[in-house]
Amino acid sequence: MRVLGVDPGLTRCGLGVIDSRAGRQVSLVAFGVAASPADEAIDQRLLAIADQIGRWIDTHRPDAVAIERVFAQRNAYTVSGTMQASGVAMVEAARRGVEVALHTPTEVKAAVTGNGEAPKEQIARMVARLLGLDEPPRPPDAADALALAICHAWRPSTLSPTGQASTAAQKAWVEAARAARRGRRSWVAA
Amino acid sequence: MRVLGVDPGLTRCGLGVIDSRAGRQVSLVAFGVAASPADEAIDQRLLAIADQIGRWIDTHRPDAVAIERVFAQRNAYTVSGTMQASGVAMVEAARRGVEVALHTPTEVKAAVTGNGEAPKEQIARMVARLLGLDEPPRPPDAADALALAICHAWRPSTLSPTGQASTAAQKAWVEAARAARRGRRSWVAA
Repeated sequence: MRVLGVDPGLTRCGLGVIDSRAGRQVSLVAFGVAASPADEAIDQRLLAIADQIGRWIDTHRPDAVAIERVFAQRNAYTVSGTMQASGVAMVEAARRGVEVALHTPTEVKAAVTGNGEAPKEQIARMVARLLGLDEPPRPPDAADALALAICHAWRPSTLSPTGQASTAAQKAWVEAARAARRGRRSWVAA
Repeated sequence: MRVLGVDPGLTRCGLGVIDSRAGRQVSLVAFGVAASPADEAIDQRLLAIADQIGRWIDTHRPDAVAIERVFAQRNAYTVSGTMQASGVAMVEAARRGVEVALHTPTEVKAAVTGNGEAPKEQIARMVARLLGLDEPPRPPDAADALALAICHAWRPSTLSPTGQASTAAQKAWVEAARAARRGRRSWVAA
């Protein structure tokens, strides 16, 4: 399957496309960023991000778009642009009939490194190794987007009919996904 | 000028269109809501909201779309859907080349009633009076959207070449807008 990962942002939105095959094989298709000038009005910036993501979907025709789940607890000002960019990315995918999945940073880290608390540099190095690159993809937003795409390709439901996690990384993934669901439930109730 | 007001939301997005003429004359064109089913996936819900707002813009051809500025401090779960809906509304307007303006709830209340802290019911009653309606528009989201549209039509820059506020409501508006700008600046620096 082909997955487009999106690390949402207003100034820079990381984008990464991978192909995945049986046996946890992944290969690089493309990576880059969608950007918008900080001195433009917010509506023009969001439109620029939307159009660039739309073109990536049209060009690479992914089976799914995996987007980082943004939490409101982070810096209030930054988070609004990030959240709006993620909403806009979802609409671009949905309008084209492409499946959308959200993954938390912890899920992504656990999927790629087996450690839900892994530092960013470790993620980038692991992404490079998994995709057979000589060095970590830059900018970091693009590396994060590729990690999101790999995370989605390796999500537990694709591992086996019973959703059995076999490796340490898969077990950490399942644990992180469960924690995210628990967190979300109590969050809704709050 | 014709203004479409948007009170952003995921479950219900208030929409209201007004025409404004010289001398603070406003008249009703249409009001209603864009809705999305709570049991659908977030990307499908945002697409539904986007498409409905797009159709309102195509139908009523406003000169401007006025959207409530959403703050991240509110309930974390609700705010993410509201913020994403506002981002999606901005893109629908920007894609059609329609001007976008954001107004805070305080600005809207001050513009319509002269009191930035006015309760919701007072806003709705004032909207009805200004638009010559027998009773407040329902649901409340639609009344809020109409208040946003009126607020935008009456924004200080349209009052006089010098931006002079002449009535108490206009003075309160200018004060609220200044406070919002001050708040935003310190917010960015935080």
